[in-house]
Amino acid sequence: MRISELSERTGMTTATIKYYLREGLIPPGRATAPNQASYDEAHVTRLRLVRALREVGGLGIDQIREVVASLDDPGQSLHAVLGISQAALAPRHDSVADEDLQAVEQLLVELGWTIDRDAPDRRTLAAGLASLRQLGQPVSALTFLPYAQAVEPVAAWEIASLETQQSREAKVELAIVGTVVYEAVMNALRRLAHEHHSASTTATADG
Amino acid sequence: MRISELSERTGMTTATIKYYLREGLIPPGRATAPNQASYDEAHVTRLRLVRALREVGGLGIDQIREVVASLDDPGQSLHAVLGISQAALAPRHDSVADEDLQAVEQLLVELGWTIDRDAPDRRTLAAGLASLRQLGQPVSALTFLPYAQAVEPVAAWEIASLETQQSREAKVELAIVGTVVYEAVMNALRRLAHEHHSASTTATADG
Repeated sequence: MRISELSERTGMTTATIKYYLREGLIPPGRATAPNQASYDEAHVTRLRLVRALREVGGLGIDQIREVVASLDDPGQSLHAVLGISQAALAPRHDSVADEDLQAVEQLLVELGWTIDRDAPDRRTLAAGLASLRQLGQPVSALTFLPYAQAVEPVAAWEIASLETQQSREAKVELAIVGTVVYEAVMNALRRLAHEHHSASTTATADG
Repeated sequence: MRISELSERTGMTTATIKYYLREGLIPPGRATAPNQASYDEAHVTRLRLVRALREVGGLGIDQIREVVASLDDPGQSLHAVLGISQAALAPRHDSVADEDLQAVEQLLVELGWTIDRDAPDRRTLAAGLASLRQLGQPVSALTFLPYAQAVEPVAAWEIASLETQQSREAKVELAIVGTVVYEAVMNALRRLAHEHHSASTTATADG
């Protein structure tokens, strides 16, 4: 198909598609004339993924390029591709204390989780421990254990459900979309559960 | 105590404290001379809360004024005060479909949760349903049920643990800090749990 049809199929402007081509986020089309190229279903799929990474995941162009490069590398397992895309979603915490990173390591050992040494979310947890300590809350390596146990069954089910998707692209897309959209959903549900439980325990006690 | 001592006790500059006084976020001191006032422990506690709402919760001055006004109103239950402060943490979604709001209502009925008609997080969930549908995922009123069931025990325990705090101020502070800090922690734990479960299910399948 021509770029105009690719634009119709994806709902993205030709300017956006050309930008992604220049940035190397989607592979070039097959040249059919000096100034014309032909695109196929793989381009439609790839554009969907790029849009999801960008609009839902909030990833930058360089991060998206890294994800698609790993996707196109047959030597990379799906686990590695998912790892690269998920790591791009984690917030960045530059300075965290070694002591807090060790506490996080202890938690991961206790949970029996296999986690990369350089996973940025180790630092997110270390920063969380530091925040709580600074706010005068008692913290230990096991402070986050009940939270980990609450999210693990959901996370396991989410990873298993990626199997419903056919292509590696579709799996990565669902993983990113699922992580981001359900994160906002879980945070909202937690605040609503607070409201419900606050209604039953604090409404009359301090009237 | 004088404003200089209040500054030392809280680690906040006198300029910041004067700003909060002008904005009505902390009550005025007791006048001891034409240009001098005396402050007490209640000011220390209130400043801690204002800082937590601002720096950890990211609340604006107007939202903080609303929280402290409800705190100072003896006719407001702790539940109402918590509701006002938690509602300030919810993202804003202006346009959501009635159909999605009805699906959210159905979910809350199914859960048996008592939630204010105007709780902004009803809209967060409705927006989540719309995002997923737009991305081609099948959604129904019960799509979020397993997520709600995963967060509810944690949320119930969090509300119960507010009882360890003596004052209403301290309870509101812990509720806000806990909601915000543990939100980042839970999101990180979920991504790490994805990594762990991805390692065990996808590492070899698509190598």
